[in-house]
Amino acid sequence: MIVGILGGTGPAGSALAARLASVGHEVRVGSRQPDRAAGIARELLDKWPDDGLRIAGVGNEAACESDIIVLATPWDGAASLAAQLAPRLEGKVVISMVNALAKVGDEFQALIPPSGSIAIAVQQAAPGARVAGAYHHLPARTVADLRATLDADVLVCSDHPMATSATVGLTDSIPGCRGVDAGRLSAAAAIEAFTAVLVGINVKHRAHASIRLTGYDPAPAGGDVTR
Amino acid sequence: MIVGILGGTGPAGSALAARLASVGHEVRVGSRQPDRAAGIARELLDKWPDDGLRIAGVGNEAACESDIIVLATPWDGAASLAAQLAPRLEGKVVISMVNALAKVGDEFQALIPPSGSIAIAVQQAAPGARVAGAYHHLPARTVADLRATLDADVLVCSDHPMATSATVGLTDSIPGCRGVDAGRLSAAAAIEAFTAVLVGINVKHRAHASIRLTGYDPAPAGGDVTR
Repeated sequence: MIVGILGGTGPAGSALAARLASVGHEVRVGSRQPDRAAGIARELLDKWPDDGLRIAGVGNEAACESDIIVLATPWDGAASLAAQLAPRLEGKVVISMVNALAKVGDEFQALIPPSGSIAIAVQQAAPGARVAGAYHHLPARTVADLRATLDADVLVCSDHPMATSATVGLTDSIPGCRGVDAGRLSAAAAIEAFTAVLVGINVKHRAHASIRLTGYDPAPAGGDVTR
Repeated sequence: MIVGILGGTGPAGSALAARLASVGHEVRVGSRQPDRAAGIARELLDKWPDDGLRIAGVGNEAACESDIIVLATPWDGAASLAAQLAPRLEGKVVISMVNALAKVGDEFQALIPPSGSIAIAVQQAAPGARVAGAYHHLPARTVADLRATLDADVLVCSDHPMATSATVGLTDSIPGCRGVDAGRLSAAAAIEAFTAVLVGINVKHRAHASIRLTGYDPAPAGGDVTR
């Protein structure tokens, strides 16, 4: 699978780039500044020289030429970048992993954007894209450390069943991660906001917390799970 | 510990009543209608005759005469009940387990009350109380089944450290549950909203999901965890 990561030079995007490349995907890290993306790609390749990573740094436009696109910009740039690239995102699965958080004193608070969530704002900005929300709760530092084992359920929400299944599939390709169909894109508001709680727990307890569902035993593939 | 559960005749409140009684607490199920509360208490005692439960059904006012108060009303009655009982809640630990959810078509959506969360609305309605948010994510049916083992982290948030520690302590008295200090009461908005995601997953996948944190290894008691 070729995965493009828009705004992939930040901690969350570059961590996911390394992790996805480590399990065999070809990753295109995108940035407004292709030179910067190339620098990040070089850093990742230098950091993990024995892992056979395939990571290239390119412009955001070129990163759209991928099977799946991940949006990993800061929250206040996500929808405008999606609008700008909308023609290139037409028909594509676009995964928003963006969280809107603000540090207020010693705590992290969730910001509720006017459209309810960043994922919905992205879907509205690129209506032809098949937007899913996912990867909000993964601790970047653990994702970035390819010798660390992940242990997380990834909540996936989308109004496009094909985007849900593609995102769950991409997630399941990462050892220690399990994709969970968490319903429609309207769930993104609560999923994104919950990231503030996890970040707060991480700061307070010096943890790198993610979540696992208990009492969840999904029906086998092909089962009658959607009714 | 004597625990009063206001509005304790609904599924979430009566489930918690049975569970807390099963681990030795004395529980006072409160209702606007004491007869109704007495009926629920009788049902629980009849259902688990060999468990030595101590559960009484009383009016909400009488339920306030407890060491810890749990608020388990429907969301639209929580703040007004807290306002009405405010003098009796003065200085007490009051745990809001209330979630504001709406079923919209086939999905559950979180409602954001004007004050941000039900827990904050309760705190504002009873400013002398020490309000904590907790128990939002526990699956009522599993909690109610005293032969079922719970497997859940309970996120606790409060602006009163004493309410946090009392709620974490109460939680830790339930086998299979672990209380986690999730920060200030402002976190309640995201914690409450996230319940809609879990309920949606439960409906979609016929599950009884709760959450566990991974990558979370709390510092020992007395450790420097709050900085």
